[in-house]
Amino acid sequence: MSAVITLTTDFGMADGYVAAIKGVALGIDPQVRLVDISHQIPPQDVAGAAFILGTTCPYFPKGTIHLAVVDPGVGTDRRAIILRTPDADYVAPDNGILSYIVRRYAGEDAGGGMQRLPAGLEAVVITDSRYWRTPVSATFHGRDIFMPVAAHLSLGVAPASFGEPTDSLFLLPSPLPELRPDGSVAGRVLNIDAFGNLVTGIRESDLPGDKLSVVVEVCGKTIHGVSRTYGGGAGLVAIIGSSDYLEIALRDGSAAELLGVKTGEKVEIKADGS
Amino acid sequence: MSAVITLTTDFGMADGYVAAIKGVALGIDPQVRLVDISHQIPPQDVAGAAFILGTTCPYFPKGTIHLAVVDPGVGTDRRAIILRTPDADYVAPDNGILSYIVRRYAGEDAGGGMQRLPAGLEAVVITDSRYWRTPVSATFHGRDIFMPVAAHLSLGVAPASFGEPTDSLFLLPSPLPELRPDGSVAGRVLNIDAFGNLVTGIRESDLPGDKLSVVVEVCGKTIHGVSRTYGGGAGLVAIIGSSDYLEIALRDGSAAELLGVKTGEKVEIKADGS
Amino acid sequence: MSAVITLTTDFGMADGYVAAIKGVALGIDPQVRLVDISHQIPPQDVAGAAFILGTTCPYFPKGTIHLAVVDPGVGTDRRAIILRTPDADYVAPDNGILSYIVRRYAGEDAGGGMQRLPAGLEAVVITDSRYWRTPVSATFHGRDIFMPVAAHLSLGVAPASFGEPTDSLFLLPSPLPELRPDGSVAGRVLNIDAFGNLVTGIRESDLPGDKLSVVVEVCGKTIHGVSRTYGGGAGLVAIIGSSDYLEIALRDGSAAELLGVKTGEKVEIKADGS
Repeated sequence: MSAVITLTTDFGMADGYVAAIKGVALGIDPQVRLVDISHQIPPQDVAGAAFILGTTCPYFPKGTIHLAVVDPGVGTDRRAIILRTPDADYVAPDNGILSYIVRRYAGEDAGGGMQRLPAGLEAVVITDSRYWRTPVSATFHGRDIFMPVAAHLSLGVAPASFGEPTDSLFLLPSPLPELRPDGSVAGRVLNIDAFGNLVTGIRESDLPGDKLSVVVEVCGKTIHGVSRTYGGGAGLVAIIGSSDYLEIALRDGSAAELLGVKTGEKVEIKADGS
Repeated sequence: MSAVITLTTDFGMADGYVAAIKGVALGIDPQVRLVDISHQIPPQDVAGAAFILGTTCPYFPKGTIHLAVVDPGVGTDRRAIILRTPDADYVAPDNGILSYIVRRYAGEDAGGGMQRLPAGLEAVVITDSRYWRTPVSATFHGRDIFMPVAAHLSLGVAPASFGEPTDSLFLLPSPLPELRPDGSVAGRVLNIDAFGNLVTGIRESDLPGDKLSVVVEVCGKTIHGVSRTYGGGAGLVAIIGSSDYLEIALRDGSAAELLGVKTGEKVEIKADGS
Repeated sequence: MSAVITLTTDFGMADGYVAAIKGVALGIDPQVRLVDISHQIPPQDVAGAAFILGTTCPYFPKGTIHLAVVDPGVGTDRRAIILRTPDADYVAPDNGILSYIVRRYAGEDAGGGMQRLPAGLEAVVITDSRYWRTPVSATFHGRDIFMPVAAHLSLGVAPASFGEPTDSLFLLPSPLPELRPDGSVAGRVLNIDAFGNLVTGIRESDLPGDKLSVVVEVCGKTIHGVSRTYGGGAGLVAIIGSSDYLEIALRDGSAAELLGVKTGEKVEIKADGS
């Protein structure tokens, strides 16, 4: 059965960059299945890419290889890595882009910075140039290093063949909301999707009290209760979205545009009447 | 031979939503071929999606499975359906998104609203949760219901296995232009393509008199004659486009931008001198 | 092994046009692999498409078939051609879109206009309608002529079966910079990528003197030295990009936006102190 490689980059779809790395993949493994996750990550937005990987990769079959190249440090001494989990392989720069993936195993409360890998995960620093394209461009490691490694993984080459094992990776700060002593919850907008929905890091189990009676505050606006569907309210609504995170949406419009909000914006939740 | 599933959504390509449903498909049928029709349907524009499906699906091979998820009613009690035609299978919400497809068999003059299916078509209301992902998200039936159904269809599971047969589907109003007693034709802009061309529901056979001598009126502008190619005129031109519909185009520009026109705008055609 | 067909068009991804030609391909060769290069070529920008083809196609495996349809002359008497090189096949209008490809064999200094093919390349004018869809739309040869030809090529049909051999093709003007007697170099911006980087036709070997000491001038701005990576400078930087061309980039921003520059803009390079 042919392997699947997914691609997540900030290259956009207008230029030939994505196609060039697909051509490289097909030259190495002519049977590989290539599936785009997104090439519209905002330029160099490692946190945005990390979120999309964390909420998308789990839907792929076991053994999928996920290539992720949002790489502001290309050409510097940032590490290039392979991460093997029980579910999938990842090939990416070690800049936090795999933070949500690692936290699926390490726990969402794992801190940021260099962190020891949890049991069951293996990582390799890509140092062996044997499988790279030559010459390696200083600015396009996606084509010359990351994809050649991913395509050889898809042929069954073992991760250890590509470099040296490592027991720690770099993680972004934890996306977990703050649960305050007074019962209120302080979270942030982690991602803004193409509908303009604000996706927060707050889960249903973080809510202070009954879903229908909490009060959500964002950008000075107040939303009463968490609805079950986009269709269930008018104006701004708060719902538990398809990724199990609380989202703030605008029926028939873009909540992000209405509120002028960006990733990182604070979202506060209180029990009704508190 | 591996089956083909096409995807038409309003999810955009920036987020991981489309990739998530592709991952689900590959988990069910690892050999399936996935082909994007469009993910840039304007949010919740069922009529726009219906037009694109109607003008694109016929070019796919017999037996293709077309998944269409533009679904403002997700999470409400709108029906989810499978439509089997002699040419292809469709998996979609029953909100009119298959109107052009159904009218290929029922006739373009079939009315809107709930309509009996013409002979030769079978439809099933998707009610059996056996093939769904669990739990089903209230907001992402594309991932949890529609694609699992489509992928099992691609494995050869019969439509009847997914629910209850139905003999009627919901159709949007007929796209046919009005042919008036005085010989003039009143149509509408059904779609605006990426070039800014205005695609109407008017066919060459609807024209009042010779193609070269008719007068086309839209937004107070007048176009004389219907050209054979985009290259054949200057400024605004009317042509019979690649989908056999009359289109209004601007040589080296966007007719939609020039005219400030939206889908639904009236287009009138008169015989020259009338 | 299944053949690969790549697609490069100015159709955009919002409409069903690209999907329609993929459907046609799958109807002819159900095993074919379809890979998008770009569908976001600016409308009718033959030179932009030519650049992207020239810098992307070489990364695909030997024998790949490249379909390129940016075709302002569709429906007129411009020729439709197949070009067979030792590396790949191309199916396209004869409007210069294959200029960079032909110059890989003819030399970058090959002039513009109708040019004799260099040894080792074969071209065929597509005249035999046997493999076309019927009827042929006057405006959509991508669907009705180019892709049916490409898909039959992928099945192994010989180029000569599709029409008459020709020994010359139309080329755009040479992208080579002017190397002046005083040692300075006058080049142009050939492409602006999705990051807003300005890609010129100047290669490292064209530079007048040491890479670190040259002075680059564009739009009244001066850049000192050519850096090794995007990460190596602040503000505007000049680098040798992944396609081996000198690029002008803005760290954490868009050089094209900052400078208000368009394709064709002059770029001058002088030895330091000259």
